[in-house]
Amino acid sequence: MSDSSNVIEYMADLGRNARRAARVVAAASAGTKNRALLAMAEALEAARPTLAEENRKDLEAGEANGLDAAMLDRLALKPATIDGMIEGLRQVAALPDPCGAITDMNFRPSGIQVGKMRVPLGVVGIIYESRPNVTIDAASLCLKSGNAAILRGGSEAIHSNRAIAACLKKGLAEAGLPETAVQVVETTDRAAVGELIAMPEYVDVIVPRGGKGLIERISRDARVPVIKHLDGICHVFIDAKADLDKAFNIALNAKTHRYGVCNAMETLLVDQTVAAEILPRLADAYAEKGVELRGCERTRALIEAQTATEEDWATEYLAPVLAIRVVDGLDEAMDHIAQYSSQHTEAIVTEDYTRARRFLHEVDSSSVMVNASTRFADGFEYGLGAEIGISTDKIHARGPVGLEGLTSQKWIVLGDGHIRN
Amino acid sequence: MSDSSNVIEYMADLGRNARRAARVVAAASAGTKNRALLAMAEALEAARPTLAEENRKDLEAGEANGLDAAMLDRLALKPATIDGMIEGLRQVAALPDPCGAITDMNFRPSGIQVGKMRVPLGVVGIIYESRPNVTIDAASLCLKSGNAAILRGGSEAIHSNRAIAACLKKGLAEAGLPETAVQVVETTDRAAVGELIAMPEYVDVIVPRGGKGLIERISRDARVPVIKHLDGICHVFIDAKADLDKAFNIALNAKTHRYGVCNAMETLLVDQTVAAEILPRLADAYAEKGVELRGCERTRALIEAQTATEEDWATEYLAPVLAIRVVDGLDEAMDHIAQYSSQHTEAIVTEDYTRARRFLHEVDSSSVMVNASTRFADGFEYGLGAEIGISTDKIHARGPVGLEGLTSQKWIVLGDGHIRN
Repeated sequence: MSDSSNVIEYMADLGRNARRAARVVAAASAGTKNRALLAMAEALEAARPTLAEENRKDLEAGEANGLDAAMLDRLALKPATIDGMIEGLRQVAALPDPCGAITDMNFRPSGIQVGKMRVPLGVVGIIYESRPNVTIDAASLCLKSGNAAILRGGSEAIHSNRAIAACLKKGLAEAGLPETAVQVVETTDRAAVGELIAMPEYVDVIVPRGGKGLIERISRDARVPVIKHLDGICHVFIDAKADLDKAFNIALNAKTHRYGVCNAMETLLVDQTVAAEILPRLADAYAEKGVELRGCERTRALIEAQTATEEDWATEYLAPVLAIRVVDGLDEAMDHIAQYSSQHTEAIVTEDYTRARRFLHEVDSSSVMVNASTRFADGFEYGLGAEIGISTDKIHARGPVGLEGLTSQKWIVLGDGHIRN
Repeated sequence: MSDSSNVIEYMADLGRNARRAARVVAAASAGTKNRALLAMAEALEAARPTLAEENRKDLEAGEANGLDAAMLDRLALKPATIDGMIEGLRQVAALPDPCGAITDMNFRPSGIQVGKMRVPLGVVGIIYESRPNVTIDAASLCLKSGNAAILRGGSEAIHSNRAIAACLKKGLAEAGLPETAVQVVETTDRAAVGELIAMPEYVDVIVPRGGKGLIERISRDARVPVIKHLDGICHVFIDAKADLDKAFNIALNAKTHRYGVCNAMETLLVDQTVAAEILPRLADAYAEKGVELRGCERTRALIEAQTATEEDWATEYLAPVLAIRVVDGLDEAMDHIAQYSSQHTEAIVTEDYTRARRFLHEVDSSSVMVNASTRFADGFEYGLGAEIGISTDKIHARGPVGLEGLTSQKWIVLGDGHIRN
């Protein structure tokens, strides 16, 4: 009991600190924020020996606790990982400041001028798992967008995260910003997460990064808006009028470029008029890459594949497995997508203008593509410069979320003594 | 038990219907949606006798149940109220369609073109209290923005709302749209609200309209994002460099133009250097209008006023009552606003460029004004054409929410066989 009330008090303290710091960071100039980011990069550079030492403690504890090789790999702060963190800070410093941009400023019939100014959200809470480098990603994006941040990493990375936090504080102090503008939760008590997502008075939005289980739990329990990225059940539809060479390349790239990513294709839909021509060609290429195929009956009549079950259509494999369905045209393809898609990314391959136009208009996903691989759904590819995640929700931010997704717009009104009659 | 499971089943049915209809409405052309809106207006015109009759049932039941005069007034569908509903439908039909607008379309180094397309949210749930004319407001804005809607009005207006629902269905049918694109909840069981806000699979966003108690309850219990407008504790700050004639007019207009509205001023902040000059003038004018004044000690040294308590600074009076505080300059004014404001609307009156610029930048409210009355914070005054409400949140929509607030943006990508390397 005394323990949990300690966590409540500790988290409320972080919240109050963040709320106060948020006003300062929101008013800070782009120059000040950039100075802090570059000073953080220098502090990381100088702290390489400490970072290695603290990371070793986490790795040893992780081994003792039986973490698997993949987990330990994500936990490791190799020299190249630290290079990446430093480079990331410099890149975010080089991005334009989204804050303060005034748009749509117009005179109204009453004589007032009305427009919008882009502003920070306030305090952002980030909850993530083992990778300690996320601490830097998240901190830099929150700071650049004028927000205060509270970062809650995995308990298995606690020593690494504390060492990184010291570098963040150093950078903030050197730029004259409050050290509480970016706070790392320094307790491993799991109750801290429950508190962080239930303090609307101190936290304006939560961004969870990690496995689906973590994100579902947070979305369910949060008393604060959540910007989240769940499943990526992405589809490619090869239309009757597809250029089959483009279709071949896109279907291959979307599945096999990387398997464990949310923008990889999980289901291939093929119009029945071209299935006999394209599927055997693709099946050979997938076989060469070791991709397991699961198909509908019409697919299985053309190529070797396991029988796809209802569950296959609704599964994000994140693995070299592909579900394939032969459909009777665009409407059946869009019906399938409407029923099974996670609204992440869908692509059509077609040379037909009208069907491309309908697909773009009618498919309700965060990214909709014509003649391009789903793998392009990514903040860097879209030109955001950096990405805090991908949102499959429609409220606030949709698709790749960069600095702008961490901001809002307020209305500004300029008058000259105007009153309303 | 069987009753509540009936409500659950009934609401799930509405949800499924809405989800299906949403795809049709999202793909409908502006012309089709406008035809439906105009046909609804005609149906209302033709149904005047029925509307009067059904409304009478609600009014009689309301009287029998002891509703007060103000409630009965809001409930009444007078001929002028119906005129307003018809006119509202025609105005929304005349607004530009927000859906499908493509912006920021650019070539990326990879060769793909990336941009954004404005799209409906999907299914919008509206929960409101006694005014049956909200049924038309909400239905028209949801339809025009390409969303399906589920409308849950107060049980005291159930006969009126059913009669209005019949007109909505008629309009939808005449335009060839599914009648389930706008559904009115036809049960008065209170459990229906609980269901409506807890069906994320069928409902994408909830917009509650009504008293603060209703909105707080819904925000607390919703399992779906809520676009809400809570308090309006709006401030006007009269700066040391204010033009005192402008200050007088704005402070008077912001308080006395209308009392029961969320954009009325509730607290007046006055720089100490001009307080002795402006406050007595204002006090006379407020006295003439019957406005009760509550002031800090420095205020009370200059004019007659009750002592303002801590609670006064945090109260939305919605009445002819005003709290007044004398402050030592801009920073103290902004500190007061940061502490007590509901982040709705704040205004500064000043001729000083630097202080105007700081106020605009640093005050964190949905509308921030220079030399204009807070009463301008309104969708019509801002040029939105119509307003579903005012959001004091920062996520998704902020300030007056019009058609655009009921939409989102998806990313669209145009390629020519592009794959990622």
